[in-house]
Amino acid sequence: MKIEAVRGGICAVKGVRAYGLKEGNKGLALIEGKGIAVGMFTLNKIKAAPVRFTEQQLENGGGRLSAIIANSGGANSFTGDKGMKNAEKMAELVSASLGVRKAEVAVASTGHIGKQLDMELIERQLGEVVKGLTAEETGSTAAAKAIMTTDTFLKEQAVSINQNDEGDGVAIGGIAKGSGMIFPHLNTATMLCFIYTDASLGAEALRMSLKDAIDNSFNMVVVDGDMSTNDLVLLVSTGKGGEISEEDFKAGLNVVCTELAKQMAQDGEGATKFIAVRVKRAASVEDAREIARAIVRSPLVKCAIFGERLDLTCGRIIATIGSCTTVGEVDPGVISINVKSDKEKEVLAVDKGAFVDLSGVARGILNGKELLIEVDMDVGDVEATAWGCDLTYDYVRINVA
Amino acid sequence: MKIEAVRGGICAVKGVRAYGLKEGNKGLALIEGKGIAVGMFTLNKIKAAPVRFTEQQLENGGGRLSAIIANSGGANSFTGDKGMKNAEKMAELVSASLGVRKAEVAVASTGHIGKQLDMELIERQLGEVVKGLTAEETGSTAAAKAIMTTDTFLKEQAVSINQNDEGDGVAIGGIAKGSGMIFPHLNTATMLCFIYTDASLGAEALRMSLKDAIDNSFNMVVVDGDMSTNDLVLLVSTGKGGEISEEDFKAGLNVVCTELAKQMAQDGEGATKFIAVRVKRAASVEDAREIARAIVRSPLVKCAIFGERLDLTCGRIIATIGSCTTVGEVDPGVISINVKSDKEKEVLAVDKGAFVDLSGVARGILNGKELLIEVDMDVGDVEATAWGCDLTYDYVRINVA
Repeated sequence: MKIEAVRGGICAVKGVRAYGLKEGNKGLALIEGKGIAVGMFTLNKIKAAPVRFTEQQLENGGGRLSAIIANSGGANSFTGDKGMKNAEKMAELVSASLGVRKAEVAVASTGHIGKQLDMELIERQLGEVVKGLTAEETGSTAAAKAIMTTDTFLKEQAVSINQNDEGDGVAIGGIAKGSGMIFPHLNTATMLCFIYTDASLGAEALRMSLKDAIDNSFNMVVVDGDMSTNDLVLLVSTGKGGEISEEDFKAGLNVVCTELAKQMAQDGEGATKFIAVRVKRAASVEDAREIARAIVRSPLVKCAIFGERLDLTCGRIIATIGSCTTVGEVDPGVISINVKSDKEKEVLAVDKGAFVDLSGVARGILNGKELLIEVDMDVGDVEATAWGCDLTYDYVRINVA
Repeated sequence: MKIEAVRGGICAVKGVRAYGLKEGNKGLALIEGKGIAVGMFTLNKIKAAPVRFTEQQLENGGGRLSAIIANSGGANSFTGDKGMKNAEKMAELVSASLGVRKAEVAVASTGHIGKQLDMELIERQLGEVVKGLTAEETGSTAAAKAIMTTDTFLKEQAVSINQNDEGDGVAIGGIAKGSGMIFPHLNTATMLCFIYTDASLGAEALRMSLKDAIDNSFNMVVVDGDMSTNDLVLLVSTGKGGEISEEDFKAGLNVVCTELAKQMAQDGEGATKFIAVRVKRAASVEDAREIARAIVRSPLVKCAIFGERLDLTCGRIIATIGSCTTVGEVDPGVISINVKSDKEKEVLAVDKGAFVDLSGVARGILNGKELLIEVDMDVGDVEATAWGCDLTYDYVRINVA
């Protein structure tokens, strides 16, 4: 079995057409692709209208989707009954335009909370987007661009999975948006992400694979610790590709989700550095995940990394490890911290409970754009990785407006 | 019963002498005052040496303290066996200087993590501080200044509690430090805080009163969501004052702790605005506290307030309310948000689930230095208040170094 990154995003998948456009901060994306669909939705107790609507659609529409419509520039969240009517109206418009069942249209929104959508604009934009629908890779790109908000680059990823060299395998492709308000909780989705595959799998296999992949990817990305009312991940299987085992599909889906998750961390609002924190030799996967996430979440750690201060970074990592309340006993005397950078070679900064004297070296190692911080807990044999970014003046600048 | 704010900090309490000095970022404070003592300590699993040492002292010393020594400029945290020896050495030095039992000396430290203390400096500073010990209010002030780190002003508060007009009551006085790395957890202490009283109360009454006061005060302050390895609150009763009921003592202690907590929020690193969030009509006190704390913790809410954007602030408050995982059902249709400022009159920004159209007003109301944000959940009859500050460029500037 061979998993390879390929071009094309969601349009790498047989049976998928997409397009999108953006005017100012208001964009619209449309994806057409029929099949069995599963979704994961924000655990926020205040769910935006499109999230509630799409959850209902998947329940009432028999777990199938024919199209997804997503707008940026308005979250349609905290918008009362009118918000629900507008989400339904978006599905109706798609149903009429594409001749698909209204019950098989998913709706997603992103943007500011509390304002009603501009339905006239959405209707006009939809008319144009429908005309542009294409199975070429430009369709995926246009859709990915249309849903960007504070994102500085579009996020898409596709892989092909082949059992042999004849190339008659399956594809998995996804697009996503998200660079702020990102702090997924376990078992929930995060940001907007639409994934298609031509693998022919049942709803239960899709659901289990998606949950697994999200736990290892989107749930391990932290930008600022806030949780959106609009987070949503959809996975649709068109079934037009070859046969694949559930295990191989999972492996491929993990790659797509992990790459998209890393792209989100790299595009963290105001970020100058991409940080991967790998917690090794933890007592359990839950411990490893909580510690890794807590470290990339800590504002003090993130500021110290922005300031390229290794001593402060390590001190604050230690404090953060200890503050993980659900983690079992922590033995500070055995913890080690190793830092790798894309610019310098690696440095062992903390060696079994003691800070290493790094006079002179201390500053250089954090000077890179990509950092891998390895925390060795030395109490077990499990590891987990979380991704995040530094906390900079630009994070504040972006979020004051 | 009358509770009045009085001058003098810890030196407002009969039987207390204090002094301190600061050289560069290295300070030393010494407080002398004999009596029954209780403490609350950080729940961080990696506890600094002075925290572990002082916990042991209270256990082994029969629950009495004669003196507290506290240094700034070094946390003595993650410092291994040598760190514990240095904490003990600090107690020994005080024991020899003041002629008190070593077992009755508490030790506290604050500063960067991972470095050993400069014991020669501490010994020399102690010699000078002992000479300066005084029962005058200048003693409290000098001690409060000595333990400051990134604090921009010293924190002290005292009250007198009188049963009648004859003034023969009791006093409670405290000093504290803390402006960053502040995010206390329930049932734990936060930052450094030393409180004295001349009220004559037993250890159990002191312990219950302190736990109660901390839940309503320090545990409701959030600056950045990080949790220190060095947090510690000590309460010592000299017993030299008049009689008081436990209930009246609790009321007075609540005032002292709440005022010190608010001073910490006002001095939040880089803060330009002091924010109080009062969650009203919640279903339970736990819900009210969690929601209030989550709102003052959210980086996005804090940035929006720094940017004085009322619409964004309210939208992000809504998202934050929904993200409180331990809170029961939330009904977005009944939530209201009212904002009061020291500069403008109040504004109802969200009215029973809908954003109020505030064109023109929106910016002005957040223009003040002190904001009270009232969130009306309309599901019960319980309230709680949390205190915090905005997230600014200066927070980043302070913490990169």
